[in-house]
Amino acid sequence: MTPTRLLQGDDGPLAVRLAARRGTLVGPTAGLAKGYVQVNLVILPEPQANGFLRFCQSNPKPCPLLAVSEPGDRGCQVLGEDLDIARDVPAYRLYRDGRLDETVHDVAGVWRDDLVTFALGCSFTFEHALALDGLPVRHVDEGRNVPMYNTSVALTSAGGFGGRLVVSMRPYRAADAIRAIQITTRYPQAHGAPVHFGDPARIGIQDIRSPDYGDAVTIGEDEIPVFWACGVTPQQVLIESGIEFAITHSPGHMLITDIPDSRLALL
Amino acid sequence: MTPTRLLQGDDGPLAVRLAARRGTLVGPTAGLAKGYVQVNLVILPEPQANGFLRFCQSNPKPCPLLAVSEPGDRGCQVLGEDLDIARDVPAYRLYRDGRLDETVHDVAGVWRDDLVTFALGCSFTFEHALALDGLPVRHVDEGRNVPMYNTSVALTSAGGFGGRLVVSMRPYRAADAIRAIQITTRYPQAHGAPVHFGDPARIGIQDIRSPDYGDAVTIGEDEIPVFWACGVTPQQVLIESGIEFAITHSPGHMLITDIPDSRLALL
Repeated sequence: MTPTRLLQGDDGPLAVRLAARRGTLVGPTAGLAKGYVQVNLVILPEPQANGFLRFCQSNPKPCPLLAVSEPGDRGCQVLGEDLDIARDVPAYRLYRDGRLDETVHDVAGVWRDDLVTFALGCSFTFEHALALDGLPVRHVDEGRNVPMYNTSVALTSAGGFGGRLVVSMRPYRAADAIRAIQITTRYPQAHGAPVHFGDPARIGIQDIRSPDYGDAVTIGEDEIPVFWACGVTPQQVLIESGIEFAITHSPGHMLITDIPDSRLALL
Repeated sequence: MTPTRLLQGDDGPLAVRLAARRGTLVGPTAGLAKGYVQVNLVILPEPQANGFLRFCQSNPKPCPLLAVSEPGDRGCQVLGEDLDIARDVPAYRLYRDGRLDETVHDVAGVWRDDLVTFALGCSFTFEHALALDGLPVRHVDEGRNVPMYNTSVALTSAGGFGGRLVVSMRPYRAADAIRAIQITTRYPQAHGAPVHFGDPARIGIQDIRSPDYGDAVTIGEDEIPVFWACGVTPQQVLIESGIEFAITHSPGHMLITDIPDSRLALL
């Protein structure tokens, strides 16, 4: 008899993927398989995929491309051994006719031979680096999801895709913000340096206490909100672009790869 | 007959040093010998120099050490060919008994065999890099000296020296400030990344419009003041520490070396 146990941070990436594949893991992946790159997924039929590739190349801060699969390929060897794109994510979103249609735990049933998978870097990678450096990561400390906001910042339209930037926010005192800018600059494939800090209204955020996604977090009196490009951006783009069919991961429910976080560091 | 001409940015470092040596250059060195490192100088008798070396090691942001001479050496070969520490700076300050005593254009007459020269990196190096990247440098654009402020930030006392940090300020919009942090991080030997941005009162600056040294500059409504550790710090430290005898350059009147600015870049 194998004793049941909860998944923990010291489980490796394959163990987490297998738990998602078996259906025993259906929740968020924050803190799981610590030290390994987690990725945002966007899955599109080949005709739209060709345009989306150009869109990602034109908007690298919200859409840092780590890997693009061949059409129909569920294995995506470059991301990990024994990996199934259609089953290894705890929760997927299905988009039909430009709207979010449903959230499911497995997309093997709707898989098609023309589907191309885009794996985009995720801020979990740089949050790990921030924490290792001794910097606070407020939403982690408060046990919440990172606060995310729609902005008025227009993306570069390309390949039939366009829309506006979504950002995540972490509050820091000025000296810590400077250090956080240095650290996240090392991770261009995980959104890289911030895009803004200070006055939220300058990027079209009306109320910092009401994030559009995730949870509000405490901002200290001596702290400044610092904003990074966010991997939720492409999900907004799919909707704003009226795409007919697409699959993504559900926010916070990422695909865990076999790639060590340090592999994404520039230096 | 050699025609008289003004020194220009395309004159090399030796030409500028020779002009200072001859006494034809007595003004500030900003914009001269573009692309070559200019340095702050602190010159102390050997007993105090030993302590000052420990002080610099403990306070690398305001006091980034490029070179330390042997006692009495006026050549300092590591900084340039045919260089005379006692004559190649357009203006020097003499400190006696813990106060600024006089400003002179030549210190050959007061030179002593026990004097040790410290060459400290200068923000001109990173300002050159900021401008090459297309970022504004406000005091340059406005034809003024950089605004500098005394702060309440205590330095690490060492070797009989101590005091408070002096900072320089350049205003930037948030996105440009992030880029400026990245660029200046590459130059730790020219003060490196900023030490603060935003609210001046947090580092003890009461009125941003009244710098303690240099000139006030325009801060746009959409701009944030960004503060870097400043090479004037050691001059304040000499006074606060009550040092008996010391020579420094006069602010803005630097020693120009043969070292290309890019040689100080980390990467």
